[in-house]
Amino acid sequence: MNFIQNDLVTKLQTNERYPLTDEHPHEECGILGICAPGEDVSRLAYFGLYALQHRGQEAAGIAVSDGQKLDMYKDVGLVSRVFNPSNLADLNGFLGIGHVRYSTFGSSMISNVQPFMIDTRFGTIALGHNGNLVNAGKLRRELMENGIGFSSTSDTEVMTMMLAGADGEDWFEHIRSCMRKWQGAYCLVILTRESIYAVRDPWGFRPLSTGKLPGKGHAVASESGALRTLGCTAIREVQPGEILRLSGEDLTIRQGIPPAEPAALCIFENVYFSRPDSNWDGMNVHQIRQRLGEQLARETRLTADEVIPVPDSSIPAAIGYARASGIPYNDGFIKNRYIGRTFIEPTDSLRKLGVALKFNVINENVEGKRIILIDDSLVRGNTTGALVGLLKEGGAREVHVCITCPPIRHPCFMGVDMGTYEELLAHNMSEEQIRDMIGADSLYYLSLDGLLKAAGRPTGYCTACYTGNYPIDINGALSKTRFEGSRVSNCG
Amino acid sequence: MNFIQNDLVTKLQTNERYPLTDEHPHEECGILGICAPGEDVSRLAYFGLYALQHRGQEAAGIAVSDGQKLDMYKDVGLVSRVFNPSNLADLNGFLGIGHVRYSTFGSSMISNVQPFMIDTRFGTIALGHNGNLVNAGKLRRELMENGIGFSSTSDTEVMTMMLAGADGEDWFEHIRSCMRKWQGAYCLVILTRESIYAVRDPWGFRPLSTGKLPGKGHAVASESGALRTLGCTAIREVQPGEILRLSGEDLTIRQGIPPAEPAALCIFENVYFSRPDSNWDGMNVHQIRQRLGEQLARETRLTADEVIPVPDSSIPAAIGYARASGIPYNDGFIKNRYIGRTFIEPTDSLRKLGVALKFNVINENVEGKRIILIDDSLVRGNTTGALVGLLKEGGAREVHVCITCPPIRHPCFMGVDMGTYEELLAHNMSEEQIRDMIGADSLYYLSLDGLLKAAGRPTGYCTACYTGNYPIDINGALSKTRFEGSRVSNCG
Amino acid sequence: MNFIQNDLVTKLQTNERYPLTDEHPHEECGILGICAPGEDVSRLAYFGLYALQHRGQEAAGIAVSDGQKLDMYKDVGLVSRVFNPSNLADLNGFLGIGHVRYSTFGSSMISNVQPFMIDTRFGTIALGHNGNLVNAGKLRRELMENGIGFSSTSDTEVMTMMLAGADGEDWFEHIRSCMRKWQGAYCLVILTRESIYAVRDPWGFRPLSTGKLPGKGHAVASESGALRTLGCTAIREVQPGEILRLSGEDLTIRQGIPPAEPAALCIFENVYFSRPDSNWDGMNVHQIRQRLGEQLARETRLTADEVIPVPDSSIPAAIGYARASGIPYNDGFIKNRYIGRTFIEPTDSLRKLGVALKFNVINENVEGKRIILIDDSLVRGNTTGALVGLLKEGGAREVHVCITCPPIRHPCFMGVDMGTYEELLAHNMSEEQIRDMIGADSLYYLSLDGLLKAAGRPTGYCTACYTGNYPIDINGALSKTRFEGSRVSNCG
Amino acid sequence: MNFIQNDLVTKLQTNERYPLTDEHPHEECGILGICAPGEDVSRLAYFGLYALQHRGQEAAGIAVSDGQKLDMYKDVGLVSRVFNPSNLADLNGFLGIGHVRYSTFGSSMISNVQPFMIDTRFGTIALGHNGNLVNAGKLRRELMENGIGFSSTSDTEVMTMMLAGADGEDWFEHIRSCMRKWQGAYCLVILTRESIYAVRDPWGFRPLSTGKLPGKGHAVASESGALRTLGCTAIREVQPGEILRLSGEDLTIRQGIPPAEPAALCIFENVYFSRPDSNWDGMNVHQIRQRLGEQLARETRLTADEVIPVPDSSIPAAIGYARASGIPYNDGFIKNRYIGRTFIEPTDSLRKLGVALKFNVINENVEGKRIILIDDSLVRGNTTGALVGLLKEGGAREVHVCITCPPIRHPCFMGVDMGTYEELLAHNMSEEQIRDMIGADSLYYLSLDGLLKAAGRPTGYCTACYTGNYPIDINGALSKTRFEGSRVSNCG
Repeated sequence: MNFIQNDLVTKLQTNERYPLTDEHPHEECGILGICAPGEDVSRLAYFGLYALQHRGQEAAGIAVSDGQKLDMYKDVGLVSRVFNPSNLADLNGFLGIGHVRYSTFGSSMISNVQPFMIDTRFGTIALGHNGNLVNAGKLRRELMENGIGFSSTSDTEVMTMMLAGADGEDWFEHIRSCMRKWQGAYCLVILTRESIYAVRDPWGFRPLSTGKLPGKGHAVASESGALRTLGCTAIREVQPGEILRLSGEDLTIRQGIPPAEPAALCIFENVYFSRPDSNWDGMNVHQIRQRLGEQLARETRLTADEVIPVPDSSIPAAIGYARASGIPYNDGFIKNRYIGRTFIEPTDSLRKLGVALKFNVINENVEGKRIILIDDSLVRGNTTGALVGLLKEGGAREVHVCITCPPIRHPCFMGVDMGTYEELLAHNMSEEQIRDMIGADSLYYLSLDGLLKAAGRPTGYCTACYTGNYPIDINGALSKTRFEGSRVSNCG
Repeated sequence: MNFIQNDLVTKLQTNERYPLTDEHPHEECGILGICAPGEDVSRLAYFGLYALQHRGQEAAGIAVSDGQKLDMYKDVGLVSRVFNPSNLADLNGFLGIGHVRYSTFGSSMISNVQPFMIDTRFGTIALGHNGNLVNAGKLRRELMENGIGFSSTSDTEVMTMMLAGADGEDWFEHIRSCMRKWQGAYCLVILTRESIYAVRDPWGFRPLSTGKLPGKGHAVASESGALRTLGCTAIREVQPGEILRLSGEDLTIRQGIPPAEPAALCIFENVYFSRPDSNWDGMNVHQIRQRLGEQLARETRLTADEVIPVPDSSIPAAIGYARASGIPYNDGFIKNRYIGRTFIEPTDSLRKLGVALKFNVINENVEGKRIILIDDSLVRGNTTGALVGLLKEGGAREVHVCITCPPIRHPCFMGVDMGTYEELLAHNMSEEQIRDMIGADSLYYLSLDGLLKAAGRPTGYCTACYTGNYPIDINGALSKTRFEGSRVSNCG
Repeated sequence: MNFIQNDLVTKLQTNERYPLTDEHPHEECGILGICAPGEDVSRLAYFGLYALQHRGQEAAGIAVSDGQKLDMYKDVGLVSRVFNPSNLADLNGFLGIGHVRYSTFGSSMISNVQPFMIDTRFGTIALGHNGNLVNAGKLRRELMENGIGFSSTSDTEVMTMMLAGADGEDWFEHIRSCMRKWQGAYCLVILTRESIYAVRDPWGFRPLSTGKLPGKGHAVASESGALRTLGCTAIREVQPGEILRLSGEDLTIRQGIPPAEPAALCIFENVYFSRPDSNWDGMNVHQIRQRLGEQLARETRLTADEVIPVPDSSIPAAIGYARASGIPYNDGFIKNRYIGRTFIEPTDSLRKLGVALKFNVINENVEGKRIILIDDSLVRGNTTGALVGLLKEGGAREVHVCITCPPIRHPCFMGVDMGTYEELLAHNMSEEQIRDMIGADSLYYLSLDGLLKAAGRPTGYCTACYTGNYPIDINGALSKTRFEGSRVSNCG
Repeated sequence: MNFIQNDLVTKLQTNERYPLTDEHPHEECGILGICAPGEDVSRLAYFGLYALQHRGQEAAGIAVSDGQKLDMYKDVGLVSRVFNPSNLADLNGFLGIGHVRYSTFGSSMISNVQPFMIDTRFGTIALGHNGNLVNAGKLRRELMENGIGFSSTSDTEVMTMMLAGADGEDWFEHIRSCMRKWQGAYCLVILTRESIYAVRDPWGFRPLSTGKLPGKGHAVASESGALRTLGCTAIREVQPGEILRLSGEDLTIRQGIPPAEPAALCIFENVYFSRPDSNWDGMNVHQIRQRLGEQLARETRLTADEVIPVPDSSIPAAIGYARASGIPYNDGFIKNRYIGRTFIEPTDSLRKLGVALKFNVINENVEGKRIILIDDSLVRGNTTGALVGLLKEGGAREVHVCITCPPIRHPCFMGVDMGTYEELLAHNMSEEQIRDMIGADSLYYLSLDGLLKAAGRPTGYCTACYTGNYPIDINGALSKTRFEGSRVSNCG
């Protein structure tokens, strides 16, 4: 969080550093809640988190309750690294919440890893959060003035402490009283001794769905794809402003506070974040992305020999572009998939070869061809430029870069690390300059109208990163960012 | 190695177990050799091995020489786990060889991890091997009768000891005298204090290529894709029976022993093993696989709504099938990509959901559709059956399974773990029985003729796994396998 | 802490379990604070903690400040395991505090490891604590009623939160206002951005000393032995109720609140806890223990052939006993010293051999001899009984057990894990019963008068574990313990 | 091994480096063999190795057989670090051998860790070795000329390969034929599928004892103290040149080759290496050391106030000195006992404080006193000099250093790392120079006659390190050392 002072740092072990080589905007977290009477909830949560891994690769945690007491395990690393048969076996219970986390390097503090678990006057609770409170700094300062100390820089700890001191007779009321004060993006799972509560902010910035487990009970997760991994049926998106309680075999849904008008669903979930097998705002993401490609084909009307995706995220759009344009779809790149925990610096001779360590071109597929390269976003431009270069070295005659959304010109303050104004290419350069920088023969962005048309409806989305029209007042956050030039650290 | 007694076991730590859930045949190893005067060879080798990781995920090792002495680091695990900045920095030199290894579980002994490094009367050598000696058991017994002890069960140690006792005046002659005795598949890299030697067996079972580094010197690797990752140019496949020496800036190529007639290149490298951006027998693998799909389309002439690949290996063939048939290509599955070191058992309720942990169906893409599912091999049938089931649950009207090679009816004794006769589905069942077992509406295999036609030439390939016609006498190996019922453990 | 609810558990990894085979009472923590302008404080703190390791082997942590921001590293394990050159190098600063921790198994929660570091309205602070607040449960409940949540079960977090909300204009006043509310044993080091504050409770239960560093600045530590390891001179014990500030080259000493009358220094520091090279209440501990042995010789007037200590803690007293009695001193036991992190269960055949795994008898030294065995405490009796058995099997003719303090009949509520009433042998058995249980020919305890005489003054010590006369009201703690039967978990 | 080429290095992970701060000569290995029908031999071996840990702290390993097949686990580190419940549980069998290893830093290669396990024409064997073959270099070169390669620099691998190629009808004969060729110090345990063989060289350089287990079967170990930890009775030292077979419940003892005349038992086992509760050459080591002290008192006839040992190894001699002289025994130093895996460099200010990190003086015990400081050896002088300095700073009036053996002037070639001629203080300086260097008021060494008298007999000991009279021809080894100036690396 940009407005939280930064002098509280518990070091990660140095061998736990992660390279930040990806230039995609980073989603900041995935959450999960499962109430499965009679089941071993920790293993269910493990596989559910595994299906949410794309939303955060830096840290993972699971908290469970057996109806009597809460227990938790969390650490930095991928889900498959954090958990093993032994520590999962120690997490006994039928109620569980889970969290995967992404954050920028500066804030990769072990003390920020979620869930957060505290003893309160209402009993012990654990909390997982996806999003970003715009007014977290103000709320944190108020609590500190009241004599409360904070052991992390996370807005999630602020939310947890507010719940510990909340008014009301029951958890629905505690949560509701806090929702009235929270400004920003938040999807929460809250574990108590007997129940799980799930909350979505009134704007609906981030996704959250619920479903019925194949056995007894229900689950909530950031994405329906994770619910389907758990075998859920009767999947339904949680609506903006709703509070759910999962308790025994029961699912209770209440309107916590009224939904904002209009809603402000993050359209970048469609473009990049969500799994293609998830639904978002009632539509399947793979199909939306195909439509983005189709729309882009209609807007660009390019002549070429092949449509090639940047793997893996742009494949659906490339399929759509190829279908709408009639230009054949093909692979142009092979991606090295084996993920490591340690970052080895390339030698100088390898550095000159650029992204070849992550991508190899299939020369035979591109040689002498006019290529349409489909990518889903262009933030800092390094990777795209290198890919264009690889295609040209591989013998491509022309390379036309088509981006499946408009230029990103504004930072996000609702839980996505887009970078600062300084870092945003499209904030600082014209499309011609960008085209030249990346060495493409032409560069096209999908229009905002085309994007909204493909997404399925003209309003109800947050498009601030394209337009600068933020759905809520982000003055505090914005000015801070400008003054301090620091990265947004949030999502808890 | 199936014929080597099995009572010599140095245990892996139990947290290093890997799940064997994939039903693909397993390639057994990738090798690499780099002579780069003036360069930090260990980091080059690291990135080269990273590009060969698909050929072996169980263990990795690098041995280097600075012209004075050899040094080595190896361990079980992925390349990115075995190596870190610290242990790479300790490996100083400009000559280096590397190895990635796959093996069946029973033989995942730390003592079998490569390279092997020994002191000999000719000086210290290190050796990396991809392949399988058919007569390793006989050779090992002969050496043991001469009073030699073995600290591993690997045929690579047999080869290493034979080199230590070989005749001849120089390493070309030492190697040549051994090649006369070695029966089977072998590609070798041999590191001495001053040079690297690379060897390919006279049948040419496994691939090996060499190229010129962007700076000084040369490299060899199992696949040209790895050479391209290193920025190599002037890439050339090592020919059957050749011995190469990389020394300073020089590359020396000699015919070690005459090539076998006809050659016996493993056709499964085309079908499954090699990276799509590698070349094999002069052709690009991605393009061969597209032709496999095109040929399959011509042979099957099915009517359907969509062509769907099993990701990732069947994508090129599915692109080819779609092009040749005119039926649209689409994604049907999302694959979970985050690889873990620890295997967590699914709960019972998840187990019933089958492969959903690894694959989710995109229901919206398959609902009500007639699907052609492209897969590159069908060995034991579990995964394919589960995928067909997922498509049907997702609403697919018809599922037609098309395999891009003929039925695999015979084990491989040249370095690939296909399984035993008992395990090979097509050895024990008719195509109709298999079709019913996997729940497909129809099942098609590419014909052997079609396979060879797509591969580009009618002879020179080993097709023993389809036909049982082994290019060399495997009686010893075969009978042993039958008697002992044990898995082939080799490639070292 | 016994009165803090126990349903908040972050699991340790299972391979971090420590065997609790020692039957000595357990000291609960050592603290350290160093202000060393121009020095690398983290390495100084490392060696200082290493010298305090005997006070807590379960966990260790260091927090530092460079005058601008605080940084911290802590983990479970011995000091030498928690810290390595890399994580120490990341802790930059000239101000540092450190902590080593012991706790009973049930409370070995990672969230309880110290120091605690939080952001407050007064800036960031880190805190290390040795002791136990008797009224922590009441204070914690009050804070929770005010809406504060707690992420650990430690009384240290309670103290930290109280400091965050304390009154007063500066840290002297903040601390003083809290001291007025804290009942029990506490020595604290508090790190702020610019200074270190050290605090000792008005009863003086636990030791704390300060000294001048050989370079610039000062240090405080639980024991003077640790200060001497750091090369300190001008060592002075912090007096009950004092607050010290270490800042730049200055040491400021103030009386925080008036000292209690009489003082209540823990006499068990003399008997067992403190290093023999430390001073306690103005006297050297090794010499006090020699006097305990001398006094015991005078009280027992036994006839025997050899005086043998239970190594290592009873050696000084055995030297004193031998001197006063004229009976020769000798070794009777060899102690296995190599400490492991993992507890391997003995086989049944080994289990029958008792403590032989930790101690071997030197038969030749005890055969046919009448032995006086000196031990410093006898809490549960298992080890002493086994040692007597080993001596007898080794051929000893008589074994007379002499304990250098009176029978321990009451639990400690000021930070020492003596065990519950149920566990305390002397609370439940007569001396004759104990003598028979441990198989000794006779059993002697030092008298309380003798103990106080050897310690050097008749009042000013807490002797509650012998007498049940607690120097402060422990009703709350006591009743809780009785009702819940649970172990004391404290010292943070 | 000094004569084995050094270009074969498999790196240890860098965090496994051990500081070499101790100036004692280093014992090089302990061995163990257990045949315990019906027992879990791996746990027995674990506790047996734990009792031998003082003989080697660098690496440990256990190999077992269940009568059908052999299995092994070994790694660098202390016994308690190498083994855990999981890897011990994987080692099933009733026959087991174990090894702990010390070696100089340069040779701490993972490939040298023992036991060595190999497949031979006689079946699989595993071997553990304590000692050093003087002619290992020659034997290794002969084997290499015969075409054998070596994967380590250890003389143990040479011995293993010689056994693999040995003549004879059974293992007694195989071993006997090798003993005829082996020159130097060796105690061996050899595990086959059905039995354990134990061997001691004809000179008897290193100790080896056998005993009857409390259940069925027998054990052998380097020291009787380890056998007593296992509860053994009927303990007997293995005689020079003997071969033992442990098989089922049977113990078979044969004379392998005739014992050398005279024997050459290492007298330094008495002085320093062996546990005080072990027997060596029929006498208890603690009592021998007491006699060393008594003899030294008679030879020196000093007047002083206190006798102080360098803990822990000089305690028995100090007790003896005090008894014979009538001067009171006391502690002067407190030793920090918590052993770490990682070596943290002291700060400059700490470095000036010298050994204070490992030892603190108890000032109150030495102030104004005339001190006799008992030490068991003085090799390089750094530690002794620092201890004298600490005593003087602590206020000692006089410090008289008494060493319990003669000056060490010659390197050992039979398995002990004494250092080279260049490093041996007494080879290069007069006693007066040494006395001045260490700052003592006087310096006394025990006479060779006095040493032999205290040891109990005038011949049969190797005293080469004092006299230079080597019991076997070490010309090869000696000249090599002089030419290469390298450390002896052996014991395997």
